[in-house]
Amino acid sequence: MIGLSGDKKFVEQITAMEDDFGQWYTDVVKQAELVDYGSVRGTMIIKPYGFAIWENMKQAIDEKIKETGHTNVYFPLFIPESLLEKEKDHIEGFAPEVAWVTHGGDEALGERICVRPTSEALFCEYYSNNVHSYRDLPMLYNQWSNVVRWEKTTRPFLRSLEFLWQEGHTAHATYEEAAEETEKMLNMYADICENYLAMPVIKGRKTESEKFAGAEYTLTVESLMHDGRALQAGTSHNFGPGFAKAFNIKYLDEEGEEQYVHQTSWGVTTRLIGALIMVHGDNRGLVIPPRIAPTQAMIVPVAQHKEGVLDRAYDLRDQLKDIVRVDIDASDHSPGWKFNESEMKGYPVRIEIGPRDIEKEQVVLVRRDTGDKEFVAMNELESRLEALLHDIQQNLFNKALAHREEKTSTATSLASFKETLEDKGGFIKAMWCGDVECEENIREQTGATSRCIPFEQERIAKTCVSCGKDAQTLVYWARAY
Amino acid sequence: MIGLSGDKKFVEQITAMEDDFGQWYTDVVKQAELVDYGSVRGTMIIKPYGFAIWENMKQAIDEKIKETGHTNVYFPLFIPESLLEKEKDHIEGFAPEVAWVTHGGDEALGERICVRPTSEALFCEYYSNNVHSYRDLPMLYNQWSNVVRWEKTTRPFLRSLEFLWQEGHTAHATYEEAAEETEKMLNMYADICENYLAMPVIKGRKTESEKFAGAEYTLTVESLMHDGRALQAGTSHNFGPGFAKAFNIKYLDEEGEEQYVHQTSWGVTTRLIGALIMVHGDNRGLVIPPRIAPTQAMIVPVAQHKEGVLDRAYDLRDQLKDIVRVDIDASDHSPGWKFNESEMKGYPVRIEIGPRDIEKEQVVLVRRDTGDKEFVAMNELESRLEALLHDIQQNLFNKALAHREEKTSTATSLASFKETLEDKGGFIKAMWCGDVECEENIREQTGATSRCIPFEQERIAKTCVSCGKDAQTLVYWARAY
Repeated sequence: MIGLSGDKKFVEQITAMEDDFGQWYTDVVKQAELVDYGSVRGTMIIKPYGFAIWENMKQAIDEKIKETGHTNVYFPLFIPESLLEKEKDHIEGFAPEVAWVTHGGDEALGERICVRPTSEALFCEYYSNNVHSYRDLPMLYNQWSNVVRWEKTTRPFLRSLEFLWQEGHTAHATYEEAAEETEKMLNMYADICENYLAMPVIKGRKTESEKFAGAEYTLTVESLMHDGRALQAGTSHNFGPGFAKAFNIKYLDEEGEEQYVHQTSWGVTTRLIGALIMVHGDNRGLVIPPRIAPTQAMIVPVAQHKEGVLDRAYDLRDQLKDIVRVDIDASDHSPGWKFNESEMKGYPVRIEIGPRDIEKEQVVLVRRDTGDKEFVAMNELESRLEALLHDIQQNLFNKALAHREEKTSTATSLASFKETLEDKGGFIKAMWCGDVECEENIREQTGATSRCIPFEQERIAKTCVSCGKDAQTLVYWARAY
Repeated sequence: MIGLSGDKKFVEQITAMEDDFGQWYTDVVKQAELVDYGSVRGTMIIKPYGFAIWENMKQAIDEKIKETGHTNVYFPLFIPESLLEKEKDHIEGFAPEVAWVTHGGDEALGERICVRPTSEALFCEYYSNNVHSYRDLPMLYNQWSNVVRWEKTTRPFLRSLEFLWQEGHTAHATYEEAAEETEKMLNMYADICENYLAMPVIKGRKTESEKFAGAEYTLTVESLMHDGRALQAGTSHNFGPGFAKAFNIKYLDEEGEEQYVHQTSWGVTTRLIGALIMVHGDNRGLVIPPRIAPTQAMIVPVAQHKEGVLDRAYDLRDQLKDIVRVDIDASDHSPGWKFNESEMKGYPVRIEIGPRDIEKEQVVLVRRDTGDKEFVAMNELESRLEALLHDIQQNLFNKALAHREEKTSTATSLASFKETLEDKGGFIKAMWCGDVECEENIREQTGATSRCIPFEQERIAKTCVSCGKDAQTLVYWARAY
């Protein structure tokens, strides 16, 4: 039982990440009270603390979506099978993971209904009815919703039967505008990952075999987890006129000529919470970057039974609450328990205040990221706290970046590729000829998949790491979540 | 076609509400660009303007939910059939309207899965695993989600196969605490309806036959639409220990005795948008109360081709944007078209500015609710606008209240009940003996259902309006949505 009463809660139960990273992840997710399992296999209950993190991410992303001229809408959960089938690649990609509704009440349905795995088909149908003239374009829509994908193996946040996400869907007059949108929204995701989640990303393009079902191309931001495996943090797809042809979405241009629209879609999901855990967490639990932490500073009263301590602690909370997201742990647990709990939850700063501190007009600040302690005079607390949160945010990013750099290697032969990957995991930068056979061969030989063709290209060799023929591009490879 | 290009848009197409209220509603919903129909019968696409209204409602409600100590969570979309069946009344009430998932990808499922029509079963299962001691209580959860009910006849916002809502689910140590919570959240809904949506409500309790499936009792806020039909705006249920017994949710009290928890649930839905339309709308379109209007003031430049007009209009927007939610219609439509469009969308205030106004350092303010125009000097605009929005909010409430009062009648015989209802619709206040047979008889004779047993009781007669036996309570009756 992991309840707020906490009597049976031992933070010591976490597996060390060096011993078993998968078990460490599961332990953290449970002990930090982020999720619980749903009754249907592979579904998850997002508990208050997990949902508060998602709400903060969502707010940051939603603001940026609106700033860039998009508006929120809500499209239905249900898609008729015939509509999903209109775009050939799309249905092929998604059919194996669709949950099918076949009955409404007692009535057997004439046509099966799909629980949305993604909503391109519905947006396309809408555009085909609502786009007429070049003056209707661009249409810049986004929705926050739940989607269902019938996955065989699942893990909380990383791969679940149902997850929460935002999906942007846009229609444009030209290919160039769609391409610009695709890149703009990828850059927005990179901004969110790096400047809010303190998680450095590699921006690039997916190979043909890794792109979204129905897309002309897919852009991606790829991040590296603490165990050296990669995680796709967000994707942005340019469909060109592909869906428009399948769904007959045409407009009259300024010359009165019929043209197909060009579309994009882009999304990030509750997976980002999984990434956050695996990029910043440690053996004491979560570490949440200040910009998205539901609680940025947790006040822990020491010797709270002594006169005046709790009152002073509550005053402190009131004093700070307009400056930082602050809370107080006034439960009847011991300070030691509270320290552990505060570390498990990953609050960026812990503020300790006891009788001696009150006497000296000071508090103790403890950073979650480094464990450093400092005494701060009460009259300097506000400015120090703000500076500290800023430092922590920056330090988390720097640490994650240093880790990624340390775990990024180059390989010019398949033998060294394999050896390096076995040895230290992480990203392998290697040249590729562009053939899907070589991509497949690398996967079979090493277990690594192509993560992206990075925008920042280097020419580290002249030949493909797999076949030895002329190399076309540099690719980031990794074992991935 | 109802697009932003608007070439084919004629606001004159709206049916007069006196001629056909149902058609008027459908016209407004479409012409004001609130919704479109989904591909699966009875589903709806909530378009940008409709969704912006919902976002504002949601924000106001979410703040109040959090202020009252509740936290947001997210529970799965899917419920196993066996779990839904645990509470007998609950499954009986909901089974006829459940959408059933029977296949995941190619795999036929061993047990059917229900797409949530409401989430009591899942929250109960969670509580049964997570509540142990009195110190775990109360648990005060809420979620914003989509739910599905397989309705036969549907109308946008009012009754749709899928809708958006919030559902609060709480567990308490005692019956009294649960009862207090049930009432507190009903009062929160009344506050939202009256002070944000400017929609007066009657607070009361549902009869046994109208209560929620599985509840001990249901509290409700009931409002009256322009056509004299009632609409249930929000409900709050006290389950007592009923679900706890079915799901075995027990805790140890302070004496170490095992006790069942007492639960509540409460919700409001996108139906509130339908209520808003039917309470405030008129034959020129929507009328949105300022507190939840996505655009509180729309600037319409007059003779915008003349030098300086558009520049001044944009300056005006920048000047006002920190005070009110303001937008500008700088499209190439005529001012007349823009005036109509602005009325159709129900923006509380229209700000007209043309060359002569610029010369005189003034603007024209036009109220949507009364149509009144006034010239306001530029240096008084900000304070005048704030006062005006406040007035409009108040006036909308007063108008709706006056309408409801005018349409509320008393009846002491079934004959006068019928006659009054035929004559002017609205609420009929009449005494009732408490027998379900009489409730059913009234419905058959008049088409009116019991809306609620109001908290504010009056004793307008000694006998039941249906059977003539001793009356127990006053009931509000009406034909309802």
